[in-house]
Amino acid sequence: MSTTEVKPVGRTILASTIAKTYISEVEDGVRKLGRSPKLVGFLANADPAAKMYAEWTGKTSESLGFTYELRVVDKDDLEESIIDANEDDSVDGIMVYFPVFGNRQDQYLQQVVSLEKDVEGLNHKYIQNMYHNIRFLDEEEQQKSILPCTPLALVKILEYLGVYNTLLDYGNRMYGKQVVIVNRSEIVGRPLAALLANDGATVYSVDLDGIQRFTRGAGLHLKRHKVEDVDLTLEDVAKNADVIVTGVPSPNYKFPKELVKDGAVCVNFSSEKNFNPDVKEKASLYVPMTGKVTIAMLLRNLLRLIDNKVANKSK
Amino acid sequence: MSTTEVKPVGRTILASTIAKTYISEVEDGVRKLGRSPKLVGFLANADPAAKMYAEWTGKTSESLGFTYELRVVDKDDLEESIIDANEDDSVDGIMVYFPVFGNRQDQYLQQVVSLEKDVEGLNHKYIQNMYHNIRFLDEEEQQKSILPCTPLALVKILEYLGVYNTLLDYGNRMYGKQVVIVNRSEIVGRPLAALLANDGATVYSVDLDGIQRFTRGAGLHLKRHKVEDVDLTLEDVAKNADVIVTGVPSPNYKFPKELVKDGAVCVNFSSEKNFNPDVKEKASLYVPMTGKVTIAMLLRNLLRLIDNKVANKSK
Repeated sequence: MSTTEVKPVGRTILASTIAKTYISEVEDGVRKLGRSPKLVGFLANADPAAKMYAEWTGKTSESLGFTYELRVVDKDDLEESIIDANEDDSVDGIMVYFPVFGNRQDQYLQQVVSLEKDVEGLNHKYIQNMYHNIRFLDEEEQQKSILPCTPLALVKILEYLGVYNTLLDYGNRMYGKQVVIVNRSEIVGRPLAALLANDGATVYSVDLDGIQRFTRGAGLHLKRHKVEDVDLTLEDVAKNADVIVTGVPSPNYKFPKELVKDGAVCVNFSSEKNFNPDVKEKASLYVPMTGKVTIAMLLRNLLRLIDNKVANKSK
Repeated sequence: MSTTEVKPVGRTILASTIAKTYISEVEDGVRKLGRSPKLVGFLANADPAAKMYAEWTGKTSESLGFTYELRVVDKDDLEESIIDANEDDSVDGIMVYFPVFGNRQDQYLQQVVSLEKDVEGLNHKYIQNMYHNIRFLDEEEQQKSILPCTPLALVKILEYLGVYNTLLDYGNRMYGKQVVIVNRSEIVGRPLAALLANDGATVYSVDLDGIQRFTRGAGLHLKRHKVEDVDLTLEDVAKNADVIVTGVPSPNYKFPKELVKDGAVCVNFSSEKNFNPDVKEKASLYVPMTGKVTIAMLLRNLLRLIDNKVANKSK
């Protein structure tokens, strides 16, 4: 062992640790509800990662008092099966393990899940509300709009890690923070950039097409973030980043350690490890996986959907 | 000139000829309405094909008594601009010239256009209704569901060409017909396959991933087509095809003439010519472009949206 070896200084924080608070919040919710909410998951592909995620959701759901039913269907029957579940009053929440077709048809199928049962928060209405910082579905503000569960999980992780400053007012708690997100997918990267920008951060969203900057917009009639293309490199934006979030679905991609600022917070939500463990030589906190927090958010969303149903009926 | 040269026997039918009936139907509609309906088109890219299509829509709309306004906006302002138009009572219909971002964000933007103003018929509700053969938005059957305009144009073209047999009952007029569609996009190929299958055809939908067969389903509670993956080659399905529809957005793609059955009907909706003109040595009827019929359908949809608004108000 060389004497000049730099020892990692950062800490690894596991998703299971972060999930604990939400897990007990969810358990409390089920207890108060007095019945076991039913979540139906649809698996229509042979992808082992999807299957594992499905089993994992099932295990967590049942351990927390939910009823979980995995329905394995042929992809050509999936739409009809979702509609059956939409119409079945005994089903409280629905999720689909994508990819199914791996193309735009998957987005079509996602929208087939009814607004009232969409635990993943991927219905167009939820996403559009999120981009516009609209927090309720109704004017009376009784029914909460659901947030997409992976971006929501990442926000909760940043709260846990202390990146959100709780001394600041709600909606301002990321003020002054610089964030780099390597992923601009419609279901995680772009919504996350918008959420963090809405909370005051300057977010650089990186994908193969280039880099965009998301900031809190000053729109007159729309509460929404502002997006600009910027002519900057990853090196430019990473060197000042307080937070680096990665979500590149490739085993070969590694975020370059030398671009990580000393003390930065690094979070990876890809199922592949986008950081080498030695990132802790630079990062102060490192979250290698986030799935367990995502599942907690999924179940939290399910309880909110049940609250919304109650609020809607009492109108 | 060789004496053995085969002279083309098929006829070319131009979209402008086919569009005529619908053009006068639309003109009549505007006359009866007694005012000039307003269509707003959003152009947020520098694509010359999109710009040309925008100008072309404008010219046709105005010549038929519509008011057309092209709004050229920055892509990052497009969402806010669409919402402005959604809320503006003077705007009857909205269309967006895609691609804008060229990725899934375009589908998000498409869904921002309000259901009541979506002349292209691309709102999820319209598409889902189409797949399920649901023709009205309301239970009283006063408000017609809008069909996506390019697939609708292709149906109208097949009607014009006599492929639809008017001696058969409505909903059965493609019975026994075999169709090959080379394109399975979410906005044209897949909806078209469903529409033709719902009318009784056997449709082979071809894309890079393989071939699927669409037939009229015998679902119990859903009126919808059935889809199966089939282990057949293009040659297998083309040799019996009464109709071949192409929509490959590449200048290099040419449908192989030798696979066209004698007397087949060939229709190309791509902006690139997917057939060589010598396809007429085999095809009986050949439609090289379809854009003019699509624009007629767009304006027809706009009039329907106005009818729906009236029906909705009189409730």
